[in-house]
Amino acid sequence: MSNAETITSLQNARIKNLVKLRNRRPRDRQSLFIAEGYRAIDRALKSGVIPEEVYFCPECFLGENEIPLIESTREKGSTLFELSRPAFEKVAYRDRPEGILGVFKQWSYGLDNIPLSQIPFLLIVESIEKPGNLGTILRSADAAGVDAIICCDPITDLFNPNVVRSSTGVLFTMPAVMTSSEETIKWLSRQRIRSVATTPHARDLHTETDLTGPLAVVMGSEQFGLSKTWLDACSNQVRIPMAGQADSLNVAMATLITLFEAVRQRSQ
Amino acid sequence: MSNAETITSLQNARIKNLVKLRNRRPRDRQSLFIAEGYRAIDRALKSGVIPEEVYFCPECFLGENEIPLIESTREKGSTLFELSRPAFEKVAYRDRPEGILGVFKQWSYGLDNIPLSQIPFLLIVESIEKPGNLGTILRSADAAGVDAIICCDPITDLFNPNVVRSSTGVLFTMPAVMTSSEETIKWLSRQRIRSVATTPHARDLHTETDLTGPLAVVMGSEQFGLSKTWLDACSNQVRIPMAGQADSLNVAMATLITLFEAVRQRSQ
Repeated sequence: MSNAETITSLQNARIKNLVKLRNRRPRDRQSLFIAEGYRAIDRALKSGVIPEEVYFCPECFLGENEIPLIESTREKGSTLFELSRPAFEKVAYRDRPEGILGVFKQWSYGLDNIPLSQIPFLLIVESIEKPGNLGTILRSADAAGVDAIICCDPITDLFNPNVVRSSTGVLFTMPAVMTSSEETIKWLSRQRIRSVATTPHARDLHTETDLTGPLAVVMGSEQFGLSKTWLDACSNQVRIPMAGQADSLNVAMATLITLFEAVRQRSQ
Repeated sequence: MSNAETITSLQNARIKNLVKLRNRRPRDRQSLFIAEGYRAIDRALKSGVIPEEVYFCPECFLGENEIPLIESTREKGSTLFELSRPAFEKVAYRDRPEGILGVFKQWSYGLDNIPLSQIPFLLIVESIEKPGNLGTILRSADAAGVDAIICCDPITDLFNPNVVRSSTGVLFTMPAVMTSSEETIKWLSRQRIRSVATTPHARDLHTETDLTGPLAVVMGSEQFGLSKTWLDACSNQVRIPMAGQADSLNVAMATLITLFEAVRQRSQ
Protein backbone atom coordinates (compact mmCIF):
# COMPACT_ATOMS: atom_id res chain seq x y z
CA MET A 1 0.00 0.00 0.00
CA SER A 2 1.18 3.51 -0.71
CA ASN A 3 2.69 5.53 2.11
CA ALA A 4 3.30 2.55 4.36
CA GLU A 5 6.66 1.86 5.88
CA THR A 6 7.57 -1.83 5.52
CA ILE A 7 8.83 -3.79 8.50
CA THR A 8 10.26 -7.28 8.21
CA SER A 9 12.68 -7.50 11.15
CA LEU A 10 11.35 -9.20 14.26
CA GLN A 11 13.83 -7.06 16.18
CA ASN A 12 12.30 -3.80 14.98
CA ALA A 13 11.58 -1.51 17.93
CA ARG A 14 7.94 -1.00 16.90
CA ILE A 15 7.36 -4.75 16.65
CA LYS A 16 8.85 -5.25 20.08
CA ASN A 17 6.72 -2.50 21.52
CA LEU A 18 3.50 -3.96 20.10
CA VAL A 19 4.25 -7.17 21.98
CA LYS A 20 4.89 -5.13 25.14
CA LEU A 21 1.53 -3.41 24.83
CA ARG A 22 -0.16 -6.69 25.72
CA ASN A 23 0.93 -6.02 29.29
CA ARG A 24 -0.72 -3.49 31.50
CA ARG A 25 2.27 -1.57 32.77
CA PRO A 26 3.71 -0.54 29.38
CA ARG A 27 0.15 -0.03 28.14
CA ASP A 28 -0.61 2.40 30.93
CA ARG A 29 2.77 4.10 30.84
CA GLN A 30 2.38 4.82 27.13
CA SER A 31 -1.37 5.39 27.49
CA LEU A 32 -1.90 3.26 24.38
CA PHE A 33 -3.61 -0.02 23.61
CA ILE A 34 -3.95 -2.46 20.73
CA ALA A 35 -6.99 -3.85 18.96
CA GLU A 36 -6.74 -6.59 16.39
CA GLY A 37 -8.89 -7.77 13.53
CA TYR A 38 -11.13 -6.29 10.89
CA ARG A 39 -14.20 -5.97 13.07
CA ALA A 40 -12.45 -4.16 15.90
CA ILE A 41 -10.85 -1.57 13.63
CA ASP A 42 -14.07 -1.12 11.70
CA ARG A 43 -16.07 -0.60 14.90
CA ALA A 44 -13.50 1.88 16.16
CA LEU A 45 -13.74 3.96 12.98
CA LYS A 46 -17.52 3.84 13.01
CA SER A 47 -17.42 5.15 16.56
CA GLY A 48 -15.10 7.96 15.51
CA VAL A 49 -12.04 6.47 17.21
CA ILE A 50 -9.03 6.71 14.91
CA PRO A 51 -5.99 4.47 15.47
CA GLU A 52 -2.68 6.25 15.86
CA GLU A 53 -0.98 3.48 13.91
CA VAL A 54 -2.21 0.60 11.78
CA TYR A 55 -0.08 -2.51 11.19
CA PHE A 56 -1.16 -4.79 8.39
CA CYS A 57 -0.06 -7.87 6.50
CA PRO A 58 -1.83 -8.45 3.18
CA GLU A 59 -0.84 -12.15 3.20
CA CYS A 60 -3.08 -12.68 6.24
CA PHE A 61 -6.14 -10.86 4.88
CA LEU A 62 -9.28 -13.00 4.82
CA GLY A 63 -11.25 -10.97 2.32
CA GLU A 64 -11.36 -7.94 0.07
CA ASN A 65 -12.46 -5.37 2.63
CA GLU A 66 -9.22 -4.90 4.50
CA ILE A 67 -7.57 -2.56 1.99
CA PRO A 68 -10.43 -0.03 1.85
CA LEU A 69 -10.59 -0.08 5.65
CA ILE A 70 -6.87 0.55 5.98
CA GLU A 71 -7.03 3.30 3.35
CA SER A 72 -9.77 4.90 5.33
CA THR A 73 -7.70 4.87 8.54
CA ARG A 74 -4.88 6.52 6.58
CA GLU A 75 -7.21 9.22 5.29
CA LYS A 76 -8.29 9.90 8.86
CA GLY A 77 -4.69 10.29 10.00
CA SER A 78 -3.37 6.85 11.03
CA THR A 79 0.24 6.03 10.23
CA LEU A 80 0.49 2.75 8.30
CA PHE A 81 3.07 -0.02 8.58
CA GLU A 82 3.14 -3.05 6.30
CA LEU A 83 4.53 -6.14 8.02
CA SER A 84 5.99 -9.38 6.71
CA ARG A 85 4.03 -12.44 7.74
CA PRO A 86 6.53 -13.47 10.46
CA ALA A 87 6.50 -9.93 11.86
CA PHE A 88 2.71 -9.83 11.90
CA GLU A 89 2.50 -13.24 13.51
CA LYS A 90 4.79 -11.99 16.23
CA VAL A 91 2.56 -9.03 17.10
CA ALA A 92 -0.78 -10.80 16.60
CA TYR A 93 -2.37 -12.13 19.76
CA ARG A 94 -5.32 -13.85 18.14
CA ASP A 95 -5.17 -17.44 16.94
CA ARG A 96 -6.01 -16.76 13.33
CA PRO A 97 -4.53 -13.34 12.63
CA GLU A 98 -6.56 -11.35 10.11
CA GLY A 99 -3.61 -9.18 9.16
CA ILE A 100 -4.76 -5.91 10.73
CA LEU A 101 -3.92 -4.40 14.10
CA GLY A 102 -4.41 -0.87 15.36
CA VAL A 103 -2.69 1.10 18.11
CA PHE A 104 -5.02 3.50 19.87
CA LYS A 105 -4.69 6.20 22.50
CA GLN A 106 -6.33 5.24 25.80
CA TRP A 107 -9.07 7.54 27.00
CA SER A 108 -10.56 8.12 30.37
CA TYR A 109 -13.98 9.25 31.37
CA GLY A 110 -14.39 10.78 34.79
CA LEU A 111 -17.54 10.18 36.79
CA ASP A 112 -18.61 13.72 36.07
CA ASN A 113 -18.31 13.23 32.32
CA ILE A 114 -20.76 10.35 32.17
CA PRO A 115 -23.55 11.28 29.75
CA LEU A 116 -26.44 10.46 32.08
CA SER A 117 -29.82 9.89 30.53
CA GLN A 118 -32.91 11.45 32.01
CA ILE A 119 -33.49 8.42 34.21
CA PRO A 120 -29.93 7.24 34.78
CA PHE A 121 -29.20 3.54 34.27
CA LEU A 122 -25.68 2.43 35.14
CA LEU A 123 -23.69 -0.73 35.57
CA ILE A 124 -21.01 -0.84 38.25
CA VAL A 125 -18.55 -3.73 38.52
CA GLU A 126 -16.07 -4.19 41.34
CA SER A 127 -12.63 -5.70 40.75
CA ILE A 128 -13.42 -7.97 37.81
CA GLU A 129 -10.47 -10.27 37.22
CA LYS A 130 -11.01 -12.04 33.92
CA PRO A 131 -10.75 -10.04 30.71
CA GLY A 132 -13.24 -12.36 29.00
CA ASN A 133 -15.83 -11.62 31.67
CA LEU A 134 -15.29 -7.87 31.46
CA GLY A 135 -15.62 -8.01 27.67
CA THR A 136 -18.87 -9.98 27.91
CA ILE A 137 -20.14 -7.58 30.56
CA LEU A 138 -19.47 -4.68 28.19
CA ARG A 139 -21.55 -6.44 25.53
CA SER A 140 -24.37 -7.01 28.00
CA ALA A 141 -24.26 -3.39 29.11
CA ASP A 142 -24.44 -2.30 25.49
CA ALA A 143 -27.36 -4.60 24.70
CA ALA A 144 -29.24 -3.41 27.79
CA GLY A 145 -28.61 0.23 26.92
CA VAL A 146 -26.95 1.44 30.11
CA ASP A 147 -25.59 4.99 30.13
CA ALA A 148 -22.12 3.85 31.19
CA ILE A 149 -20.16 1.17 32.96
CA ILE A 150 -18.13 2.11 36.03
CA CYS A 151 -15.24 -0.25 36.81
CA CYS A 152 -14.33 0.18 40.46
CA ASP A 153 -10.90 -0.81 41.72
CA PRO A 154 -10.30 -2.65 38.46
CA ILE A 155 -8.01 -5.68 38.37
CA THR A 156 -8.35 -6.17 34.63
CA ASP A 157 -8.15 -2.81 32.89
CA LEU A 158 -10.52 -1.93 30.09
CA PHE A 159 -7.71 -1.80 27.55
CA ASN A 160 -6.51 -5.37 28.05
CA PRO A 161 -6.40 -6.92 24.54
CA ASN A 162 -8.75 -9.71 25.61
CA VAL A 163 -11.28 -7.20 26.95
CA VAL A 164 -11.09 -5.33 23.66
CA ARG A 165 -11.57 -8.56 21.74
CA SER A 166 -14.32 -10.09 23.82
CA SER A 167 -16.23 -6.80 23.90
CA THR A 168 -16.61 -7.17 20.09
CA GLY A 169 -16.03 -3.47 19.65
CA VAL A 170 -18.32 -2.24 22.42
CA LEU A 171 -15.27 -0.81 24.20
CA PHE A 172 -15.13 1.84 21.47
CA THR A 173 -18.68 3.02 22.01
CA MET A 174 -19.63 2.49 25.66
CA PRO A 175 -18.79 5.27 28.13
CA ALA A 176 -16.61 3.51 30.69
CA VAL A 177 -14.99 4.87 33.83
CA MET A 178 -12.21 3.30 35.89
CA THR A 179 -12.18 4.68 39.41
CA SER A 180 -12.35 3.76 43.08
CA SER A 181 -15.34 2.35 44.93
CA GLU A 182 -15.12 5.19 47.41
CA GLU A 183 -15.37 7.92 44.78
CA THR A 184 -18.19 6.09 43.05
CA ILE A 185 -20.25 5.67 46.20
CA LYS A 186 -19.95 9.39 46.97
CA TRP A 187 -20.85 10.29 43.41
CA LEU A 188 -23.93 8.04 43.38
CA SER A 189 -25.13 9.67 46.54
CA ARG A 190 -24.60 13.18 45.14
CA GLN A 191 -26.46 12.16 41.97
CA ARG A 192 -29.24 10.49 43.99
CA ILE A 193 -28.86 7.29 42.01
CA ARG A 194 -30.09 4.21 43.84
CA SER A 195 -27.67 1.28 43.80
CA VAL A 196 -28.75 -2.36 43.82
CA ALA A 197 -26.23 -5.06 44.71
CA THR A 198 -26.55 -8.51 43.16
CA THR A 199 -25.36 -11.16 45.61
CA PRO A 200 -26.30 -14.80 46.17
CA HIS A 201 -26.88 -14.01 49.87
CA ALA A 202 -29.70 -11.52 49.34
CA ARG A 203 -33.22 -12.27 50.55
CA ASP A 204 -35.13 -10.66 47.70
CA LEU A 205 -35.21 -11.85 44.12
CA HIS A 206 -34.12 -9.43 41.40
CA THR A 207 -37.55 -9.79 39.86
CA GLU A 208 -39.31 -8.77 43.09
CA THR A 209 -37.28 -5.62 43.57
CA ASP A 210 -38.04 -2.29 41.98
CA LEU A 211 -35.39 -1.61 39.35
CA THR A 212 -37.02 1.46 37.84
CA GLY A 213 -35.94 5.06 38.41
CA PRO A 214 -32.33 6.29 38.60
CA LEU A 215 -30.45 2.99 39.05
CA ALA A 216 -27.00 1.48 39.29
CA VAL A 217 -26.76 -2.32 39.16
CA VAL A 218 -23.68 -3.34 41.16
CA MET A 219 -21.81 -6.61 40.57
CA GLY A 220 -18.86 -8.07 42.50
CA SER A 221 -15.73 -9.94 41.50
CA GLU A 222 -15.54 -13.55 40.33
CA GLN A 223 -13.81 -14.84 43.44
CA PHE A 224 -15.03 -12.64 46.24
CA GLY A 225 -18.34 -11.17 45.14
CA LEU A 226 -19.08 -7.67 46.40
CA SER A 227 -17.02 -6.12 49.18
CA LYS A 228 -18.64 -5.15 52.46
CA THR A 229 -18.17 -1.51 51.45
CA TRP A 230 -20.47 -2.00 48.49
CA LEU A 231 -22.96 -4.25 50.24
CA ASP A 232 -23.33 -1.59 52.93
CA ALA A 233 -23.53 1.25 50.45
CA CYS A 234 -26.26 -0.26 48.27
CA SER A 235 -29.91 0.55 48.86
CA ASN A 236 -31.01 -2.99 48.03
CA GLN A 237 -29.54 -6.44 47.66
CA VAL A 238 -31.02 -8.87 45.20
CA ARG A 239 -30.35 -12.43 44.17
CA ILE A 240 -31.06 -14.48 41.09
CA PRO A 241 -32.96 -17.72 41.74
CA MET A 242 -30.70 -20.71 41.05
CA ALA A 243 -32.12 -24.11 40.23
CA GLY A 244 -28.89 -26.01 39.59
CA GLN A 245 -25.30 -26.10 40.85
CA ALA A 246 -24.19 -23.06 42.80
CA ASP A 247 -21.62 -22.00 40.22
CA SER A 248 -23.67 -22.37 37.06
CA LEU A 249 -23.99 -18.60 36.75
CA ASN A 250 -20.75 -16.66 36.57
CA VAL A 251 -20.56 -12.91 37.09
CA ALA A 252 -21.04 -12.13 33.41
CA MET A 253 -24.17 -14.27 33.26
CA ALA A 254 -25.56 -12.80 36.50
CA THR A 255 -24.94 -9.28 35.14
CA LEU A 256 -26.81 -10.07 31.95
CA ILE A 257 -29.84 -11.46 33.80
CA THR A 258 -30.02 -8.53 36.21
CA LEU A 259 -29.63 -5.88 33.50
CA PHE A 260 -32.36 -7.41 31.36
CA GLU A 261 -34.73 -7.64 34.29
CA ALA A 262 -34.09 -3.93 34.79
CA VAL A 263 -34.77 -3.34 31.10
CA ARG A 264 -38.07 -5.22 31.41
CA GLN A 265 -39.21 -3.22 34.44
CA ARG A 266 -38.05 0.09 33.02
CA SER A 267 -39.89 -0.39 29.72
CA GLN A 268 -43.27 -0.89 31.33
CA MET B 1 -0.64 -44.84 44.02
CA SER B 2 -1.35 -48.49 44.56
CA ASN B 3 -2.85 -50.50 41.73
CA ALA B 4 -2.01 -47.97 39.05
CA GLU B 5 -0.14 -48.94 35.93
CA THR B 6 2.61 -46.40 35.18
CA ILE B 7 2.98 -44.92 31.70
CA THR B 8 5.95 -42.82 30.66
CA SER B 9 6.19 -43.45 26.92
CA LEU B 10 4.61 -40.81 24.71
CA GLN B 11 4.18 -43.57 22.14
CA ASN B 12 2.04 -45.69 24.43
CA ALA B 13 -1.18 -46.71 22.69
CA ARG B 14 -3.38 -45.40 25.52
CA ILE B 15 -1.67 -42.02 25.42
CA LYS B 16 -2.13 -41.80 21.69
CA ASN B 17 -5.78 -42.75 22.02
CA LEU B 18 -6.45 -40.06 24.63
CA VAL B 19 -5.21 -37.48 22.16
CA LYS B 20 -7.46 -38.99 19.48
CA LEU B 21 -10.50 -38.68 21.74
CA ARG B 22 -10.36 -34.91 21.35
CA ASN B 23 -11.79 -35.47 17.89
CA ARG B 24 -15.38 -36.33 17.26
CA ARG B 25 -15.01 -39.30 14.95
CA PRO B 26 -12.87 -41.48 17.24
CA ARG B 27 -14.89 -40.22 20.21
CA ASP B 28 -18.14 -41.39 18.62
CA ARG B 29 -16.70 -44.62 17.22
CA GLN B 30 -15.46 -45.63 20.66
CA SER B 31 -18.47 -44.07 22.40
CA LEU B 32 -16.11 -42.52 24.94
CA PHE B 33 -15.15 -38.99 25.95
CA ILE B 34 -12.62 -37.27 28.17
CA ALA B 35 -13.04 -34.79 31.02
CA GLU B 36 -10.10 -33.06 32.61
CA GLY B 37 -9.47 -31.42 35.94
CA TYR B 38 -10.41 -31.91 39.55
CA ARG B 39 -13.77 -30.19 39.34
CA ALA B 40 -15.01 -32.15 36.32
CA ILE B 41 -14.14 -35.54 37.83
CA ASP B 42 -15.57 -34.51 41.19
CA ARG B 43 -18.83 -33.38 39.60
CA ALA B 44 -19.04 -36.59 37.62
CA LEU B 45 -18.69 -38.72 40.76
CA LYS B 46 -21.19 -36.60 42.64
CA SER B 47 -23.62 -37.17 39.80
CA GLY B 48 -23.02 -40.91 39.94
CA VAL B 49 -21.02 -41.00 36.71
CA ILE B 50 -17.93 -43.17 37.12
CA PRO B 51 -14.98 -42.82 34.75
CA GLU B 52 -13.89 -46.00 33.00
CA GLU B 53 -10.27 -44.92 33.34
CA VAL B 54 -8.49 -42.21 35.31
CA TYR B 55 -5.10 -40.85 34.22
CA PHE B 56 -3.19 -38.83 36.77
CA CYS B 57 0.16 -37.16 37.31
CA PRO B 58 0.98 -36.29 40.94
CA GLU B 59 3.59 -33.73 39.82
CA CYS B 60 0.80 -31.61 38.31
CA PHE B 61 -1.54 -31.73 41.31
CA LEU B 62 -2.50 -28.29 42.62
CA GLY B 63 -3.60 -29.35 46.10
CA GLU B 64 -4.16 -32.19 48.51
CA ASN B 65 -7.57 -33.32 47.33
CA GLU B 66 -6.61 -35.12 44.17
CA ILE B 67 -5.45 -38.34 45.81
CA PRO B 68 -8.63 -38.98 47.80
CA LEU B 69 -10.67 -38.21 44.67
CA ILE B 70 -8.66 -40.65 42.58
CA GLU B 71 -8.88 -43.29 45.31
CA SER B 72 -12.59 -42.85 45.31
CA THR B 73 -12.82 -43.39 41.54
CA ARG B 74 -10.79 -46.60 41.99
CA GLU B 75 -13.14 -47.81 44.70
CA LYS B 76 -16.04 -47.21 42.35
CA GLY B 77 -14.38 -49.26 39.62
CA SER B 78 -12.21 -46.92 37.54
CA THR B 79 -8.91 -48.27 36.22
CA LEU B 80 -6.02 -45.99 37.19
CA PHE B 81 -2.95 -45.01 35.20
CA GLU B 82 -0.14 -42.90 36.59
CA LEU B 83 1.56 -40.77 33.95
CA SER B 84 4.93 -39.05 33.79
CA ARG B 85 4.70 -35.29 33.43
CA PRO B 86 5.55 -35.31 29.70
CA ALA B 87 2.96 -38.03 29.11
CA PHE B 88 0.31 -36.09 31.04
CA GLU B 89 1.14 -32.88 29.24
CA LYS B 90 0.64 -34.69 25.96
CA VAL B 91 -2.88 -35.83 26.85
CA ALA B 92 -3.96 -32.68 28.71
CA TYR B 93 -5.94 -30.21 26.64
CA ARG B 94 -6.20 -27.48 29.25
CA ASP B 95 -3.59 -24.75 29.61
CA ARG B 96 -2.64 -25.48 33.19
CA PRO B 97 -3.10 -29.23 33.57
CA GLU B 98 -4.25 -30.23 37.03
CA GLY B 99 -2.92 -33.76 36.70
CA ILE B 100 -6.22 -35.60 36.46
CA LEU B 101 -8.17 -36.75 33.44
CA GLY B 102 -11.02 -39.25 33.18
CA VAL B 103 -12.31 -41.32 30.29
CA PHE B 104 -16.07 -41.81 30.39
CA LYS B 105 -18.61 -43.79 28.42
CA GLN B 106 -20.89 -41.60 26.34
CA TRP B 107 -24.56 -41.88 27.11
CA SER B 108 -27.62 -41.02 25.13
CA TYR B 109 -31.04 -39.99 26.21
CA GLY B 110 -33.85 -40.51 23.80
CA LEU B 111 -36.69 -38.01 23.61
CA ASP B 112 -38.93 -40.53 25.33
CA ASN B 113 -36.53 -40.89 28.27
CA ILE B 114 -36.60 -37.21 29.20
CA PRO B 115 -37.74 -36.93 32.80
CA LEU B 116 -40.47 -34.34 32.20
CA SER B 117 -41.66 -32.32 35.15
CA GLN B 118 -45.34 -31.76 35.72
CA ILE B 119 -45.27 -28.58 33.67
CA PRO B 120 -42.52 -29.38 31.20
CA PHE B 121 -39.80 -26.75 30.66
CA LEU B 122 -37.28 -27.55 27.94
CA LEU B 123 -34.51 -25.88 26.05
CA ILE B 124 -33.99 -26.76 22.40
CA VAL B 125 -30.94 -25.61 20.45
CA GLU B 126 -30.45 -26.08 16.74
CA SER B 127 -27.02 -26.73 15.22
CA ILE B 128 -24.85 -24.90 17.74
CA GLU B 129 -21.34 -24.62 16.34
CA LYS B 130 -19.09 -23.40 19.13
CA PRO B 131 -18.32 -25.73 22.03
CA GLY B 132 -17.91 -22.76 24.38
CA ASN B 133 -21.42 -21.58 23.57
CA LEU B 134 -22.92 -25.02 24.06
CA GLY B 135 -21.15 -25.35 27.42
CA THR B 136 -22.42 -21.95 28.57
CA ILE B 137 -25.90 -22.85 27.36
CA LEU B 138 -25.77 -26.02 29.49
CA ARG B 139 -24.89 -23.87 32.52
CA SER B 140 -27.77 -21.51 31.78
CA ALA B 141 -30.17 -24.41 31.37
CA ASP B 142 -29.02 -25.81 34.70
CA ALA B 143 -29.37 -22.49 36.50
CA ALA B 144 -32.85 -21.98 35.04
CA GLY B 145 -33.91 -25.49 36.01
CA VAL B 146 -35.04 -26.86 32.68
CA ASP B 147 -36.00 -30.54 32.53
CA ALA B 148 -33.61 -31.23 29.68
CA ILE B 149 -31.77 -29.75 26.74
CA ILE B 150 -32.45 -31.10 23.27
CA CYS B 151 -29.65 -30.53 20.75
CA CYS B 152 -31.13 -30.78 17.28
CA ASP B 153 -28.92 -31.57 14.30
CA PRO B 154 -25.87 -30.86 16.44
CA ILE B 155 -22.69 -29.54 14.85
CA THR B 156 -20.73 -29.58 18.11
CA ASP B 157 -21.47 -32.77 20.00
CA LEU B 158 -22.12 -32.70 23.74
CA PHE B 159 -18.99 -34.70 24.46
CA ASN B 160 -16.53 -32.29 22.85
CA PRO B 161 -13.85 -31.63 25.50
CA ASN B 162 -14.52 -27.89 25.35
CA VAL B 163 -18.24 -28.42 25.93
CA VAL B 164 -17.43 -30.62 28.91
CA ARG B 165 -15.04 -27.99 30.26
CA SER B 166 -17.17 -24.92 29.67
CA SER B 167 -20.24 -26.64 31.11
CA THR B 168 -18.36 -26.74 34.46
CA GLY B 169 -19.71 -30.22 35.13
CA VAL B 170 -23.32 -29.58 34.14
CA LEU B 171 -22.92 -32.09 31.32
CA PHE B 172 -22.83 -34.82 33.96
CA THR B 173 -26.14 -33.83 35.52
CA MET B 174 -28.35 -32.31 32.84
CA PRO B 175 -30.51 -34.67 30.77
CA ALA B 176 -29.43 -33.94 27.22
CA VAL B 177 -30.64 -35.41 23.95
CA MET B 178 -29.00 -35.24 20.54
CA THR B 179 -31.51 -35.83 17.79
CA SER B 180 -33.00 -34.38 14.61
CA SER B 181 -35.25 -31.33 14.38
CA GLU B 182 -37.85 -33.42 12.61
CA GLU B 183 -38.11 -36.00 15.40
CA THR B 184 -38.20 -33.27 18.02
CA ILE B 185 -40.98 -31.32 16.33
CA LYS B 186 -43.13 -34.47 16.13
CA TRP B 187 -42.39 -35.32 19.74
CA LEU B 188 -43.29 -31.81 20.98
CA SER B 189 -46.58 -32.04 19.19
CA ARG B 190 -47.34 -35.47 20.66
CA GLN B 191 -46.44 -34.15 24.12
CA ARG B 192 -48.48 -30.97 23.57
CA ILE B 193 -45.53 -28.80 24.54
CA ARG B 194 -45.68 -25.30 23.14
CA SER B 195 -42.46 -24.13 21.46
CA VAL B 196 -41.30 -20.52 21.42
CA ALA B 197 -38.62 -19.45 18.95
CA THR B 198 -36.21 -16.68 19.87
CA THR B 199 -35.28 -14.70 16.78
CA PRO B 200 -34.28 -11.07 16.19
CA HIS B 201 -36.96 -10.84 13.49
CA ALA B 202 -39.92 -11.51 15.78
CA ARG B 203 -42.54 -8.84 16.41
CA ASP B 204 -43.24 -9.62 20.07
CA LEU B 205 -40.82 -9.15 22.94
CA HIS B 206 -39.97 -12.19 25.07
CA THR B 207 -41.32 -10.32 28.09
CA GLU B 208 -44.70 -9.73 26.42
CA THR B 209 -45.24 -13.35 25.46
CA ASP B 210 -46.69 -16.01 27.74
CA LEU B 211 -43.89 -18.38 28.72
CA THR B 212 -45.86 -20.32 31.32
CA GLY B 213 -47.30 -23.81 30.87
CA PRO B 214 -45.61 -26.67 29.04
CA LEU B 215 -42.83 -24.86 27.19
CA ALA B 216 -39.82 -25.39 24.96
CA VAL B 217 -37.58 -22.37 24.35
CA VAL B 218 -35.98 -22.81 20.91
CA MET B 219 -32.68 -21.16 19.94
CA GLY B 220 -30.89 -21.20 16.58
CA SER B 221 -27.27 -21.43 15.51
CA GLU B 222 -24.64 -18.71 15.81
CA GLN B 223 -24.39 -18.06 12.09
CA PHE B 224 -27.81 -18.79 10.71
CA GLY B 225 -30.26 -18.46 13.58
CA LEU B 226 -33.25 -20.79 13.45
CA SER B 227 -34.11 -22.71 10.29
CA LYS B 228 -37.39 -22.13 8.51
CA THR B 229 -38.47 -25.58 9.69
CA TRP B 230 -38.25 -24.44 13.30
CA LEU B 231 -39.65 -20.96 12.73
CA ASP B 232 -42.69 -22.54 11.08
CA ALA B 233 -43.04 -25.22 13.74
CA CYS B 234 -42.98 -22.88 16.74
CA SER B 235 -46.20 -21.53 18.23
CA ASN B 236 -44.66 -18.12 18.93
CA GLN B 237 -41.65 -16.09 17.93
CA VAL B 238 -40.12 -13.67 20.38
CA ARG B 239 -37.25 -11.22 20.33
CA ILE B 240 -35.08 -9.64 22.98
CA PRO B 241 -34.99 -5.83 22.88
CA MET B 242 -31.53 -4.63 21.83
CA ALA B 243 -30.27 -1.19 22.69
CA GLY B 244 -26.75 -1.40 21.26
CA GLN B 245 -24.93 -3.01 18.35
CA ALA B 246 -26.79 -5.81 16.62
CA ASP B 247 -24.30 -8.48 17.65
CA SER B 248 -23.86 -7.61 21.30
CA LEU B 249 -25.89 -10.65 22.34
CA ASN B 250 -24.62 -14.00 21.15
CA VAL B 251 -26.73 -17.14 21.21
CA ALA B 252 -25.58 -18.14 24.70
CA MET B 253 -26.52 -14.72 26.08
CA ALA B 254 -29.88 -14.69 24.30
CA THR B 255 -30.62 -18.16 25.68
CA LEU B 256 -29.85 -17.04 29.21
CA ILE B 257 -32.10 -13.98 28.98
CA THR B 258 -35.00 -15.94 27.51
CA LEU B 259 -34.74 -18.79 30.02
CA PHE B 260 -34.70 -16.43 32.99
CA GLU B 261 -37.68 -14.51 31.68
CA ALA B 262 -39.47 -17.86 31.53
CA VAL B 263 -38.34 -18.59 35.10
CA ARG B 264 -39.76 -15.25 36.22
CA GLN B 265 -43.12 -15.81 34.57
CA ARG B 266 -43.36 -19.42 35.71
CA SER B 267 -42.66 -18.57 39.34
CA GLN B 268 -45.52 -16.11 39.61
